[in-house]
Amino acid sequence: MSLIENTLNKIEKRNEKAMKNAKERLDNLAKPIGSLGELEEIAVKMAGITGKVHNKIHKKNIVIMCSDNGIWEEGISNCPKGLTANITENFVKGITGVCVLGDFFKCDRTIVDIGTDYDFKSDEIINKKIDYGTRNIAKGPAMTREQCIKAIETGIEIIDGLVKEGYDLFGTGEMGVCNTATSSAVLSAILKLPVNETVGKGSGITEDKFKAKKKAVQNAIKINNPNPEDIIDVIAKVGGFDIAGICGCFLGAAKNRVPIVIDGFISSVAALCAVKLNEKVVDFLFPSHLSAEPAAKCVMKELGLNPMLNLNMRLGEGSGCPMAFAILESALYVMDNMGTFEEAEVDGSKLIDIRKSSDS
Amino acid sequence: MSLIENTLNKIEKRNEKAMKNAKERLDNLAKPIGSLGELEEIAVKMAGITGKVHNKIHKKNIVIMCSDNGIWEEGISNCPKGLTANITENFVKGITGVCVLGDFFKCDRTIVDIGTDYDFKSDEIINKKIDYGTRNIAKGPAMTREQCIKAIETGIEIIDGLVKEGYDLFGTGEMGVCNTATSSAVLSAILKLPVNETVGKGSGITEDKFKAKKKAVQNAIKINNPNPEDIIDVIAKVGGFDIAGICGCFLGAAKNRVPIVIDGFISSVAALCAVKLNEKVVDFLFPSHLSAEPAAKCVMKELGLNPMLNLNMRLGEGSGCPMAFAILESALYVMDNMGTFEEAEVDGSKLIDIRKSSDS
Repeated sequence: MSLIENTLNKIEKRNEKAMKNAKERLDNLAKPIGSLGELEEIAVKMAGITGKVHNKIHKKNIVIMCSDNGIWEEGISNCPKGLTANITENFVKGITGVCVLGDFFKCDRTIVDIGTDYDFKSDEIINKKIDYGTRNIAKGPAMTREQCIKAIETGIEIIDGLVKEGYDLFGTGEMGVCNTATSSAVLSAILKLPVNETVGKGSGITEDKFKAKKKAVQNAIKINNPNPEDIIDVIAKVGGFDIAGICGCFLGAAKNRVPIVIDGFISSVAALCAVKLNEKVVDFLFPSHLSAEPAAKCVMKELGLNPMLNLNMRLGEGSGCPMAFAILESALYVMDNMGTFEEAEVDGSKLIDIRKSSDS
Repeated sequence: MSLIENTLNKIEKRNEKAMKNAKERLDNLAKPIGSLGELEEIAVKMAGITGKVHNKIHKKNIVIMCSDNGIWEEGISNCPKGLTANITENFVKGITGVCVLGDFFKCDRTIVDIGTDYDFKSDEIINKKIDYGTRNIAKGPAMTREQCIKAIETGIEIIDGLVKEGYDLFGTGEMGVCNTATSSAVLSAILKLPVNETVGKGSGITEDKFKAKKKAVQNAIKINNPNPEDIIDVIAKVGGFDIAGICGCFLGAAKNRVPIVIDGFISSVAALCAVKLNEKVVDFLFPSHLSAEPAAKCVMKELGLNPMLNLNMRLGEGSGCPMAFAILESALYVMDNMGTFEEAEVDGSKLIDIRKSSDS
């Protein structure tokens, strides 16, 4: 059995009993039931993942998949293609958005070259290159089916390795010029949505390039005719190495029963791919922010997830993960440290009233 | 001149020059312009407050105003009135939601008895009691105009004192059974909105009590006929000591040019009062989360502010502030530590392209 099949088979259901126990514990804390909203949902979801009511995060890591996209040659981006390699090197220097936010919130990062058009010298960039960029999806498939499987398996392997190193909370990030275009193509293919609903302006292209981008994505769908029922076919034909790799990270996290945070639009689309491969994956996913990319909302809706943050960000890189990590950890801290009604109350007769509800 | 008049006169405009410099610095960081969304807005707003491009927070404090509300006797809450005092004591024990979240994010708290119906023994609860709860607004004014001014000035004085102690970031919180009802009354009065649009279910009352709550708030408006042009009249007639005290905190923070974070619905209404007293106050306010209380959205819209967090919380206490503090601090950290284009780039010719925009 291949690693990907093996992984998909090994993903187990959430632990309903632990979730019930977690909810009971939360409802016994001195507050109106449910009044901590998503923080309570997060703590319960974590119980479903680990099987324990009380959880603590020890080591956090953001996995950043870097790769180039052949669709760049359609002239749909203002960026030089070399920016992918340039920013990838800057992840090592620690000066990009995700690095700085990650430093502030004390999380590590793993930089993976899964398919850039560049040979890096730094040891800190893990060389998992499938190829020197994908082919142009507006003219044919991005990669072969074998390459796609290999890219997904790369994500699984990276997570497997990091879990062995003791990491117990992951985030996903990426760098790849034109990867909003490939993400839109994948989204259009899977949900059968017109490109008008899935293509945005990335980080801010001109109207002319926006038109060209929509046309290129439209062509990609038309020419490749990906099968929406076959996620690997979709990613191979109209996706990218980064999307495949991140998809693998989600599968790997679910297999290892470790929580994983979704960053922005590209990560969200990769998460959707993972959930379509195995619907149980959704129970291991935590969204971070709602990306400014318009179609992000539709992906979140399809996943049934509510992003914690509303910061109008559109940088990618995994930059939304560090803040989400902090919120997730604070939710676990609430579970452990808030007083119960018994601890909080002097007058036992108040108990029943307050548990029902309260007004402040 | 009274303290409140003096404070209102001393609030100065935001520093446009520092904001311009901050924006220039952000636009020179190696990312598509504006791609860090609200994080960039926060960093620029901070520059407007302090007059400096680079800012760092040293000490954080959440001021929690505790008071009782006479409207409780209308039977509009499931909570016993004594819960206000009970939870106030639990702030000292450190076991409530805001305490635990505050501990996680390393912020201090100041507990103020501005008008509970209880005499506390603990030194850690600052006794600034205006009265033993307000009167029932469904039957007459909550307090006298003098009491309202005194409560607002209490908030100003608390902030003045904390600023002297070196606190440079504040949050607002409250505890007071029925204070969503008084907040709705204040909101209805100021924005001339029907109670159907301003009254919510607080932390979850029954349909019967919800009807009674709407009727009581409606009666409060009708009987007291507060003057929407006179904010002190509105708070005195249909508000509460907590709302007045928090309003004072916002004024005090603006006078001292220190940023202050708004928690949930009650704090938002108090913020609206402060801004109506002096429109320049808004430049010192940072919203935290969008409360689950339905009218919170309308207050944020009126203030022109976008909450950072979307966690469906409705606990109050100031529980949304600690997370917002962390996001705010991370925005300042980005300003200081992200690489500029010069630092990030090898190939100078890429510069122009990237600054214009980018697609990843």
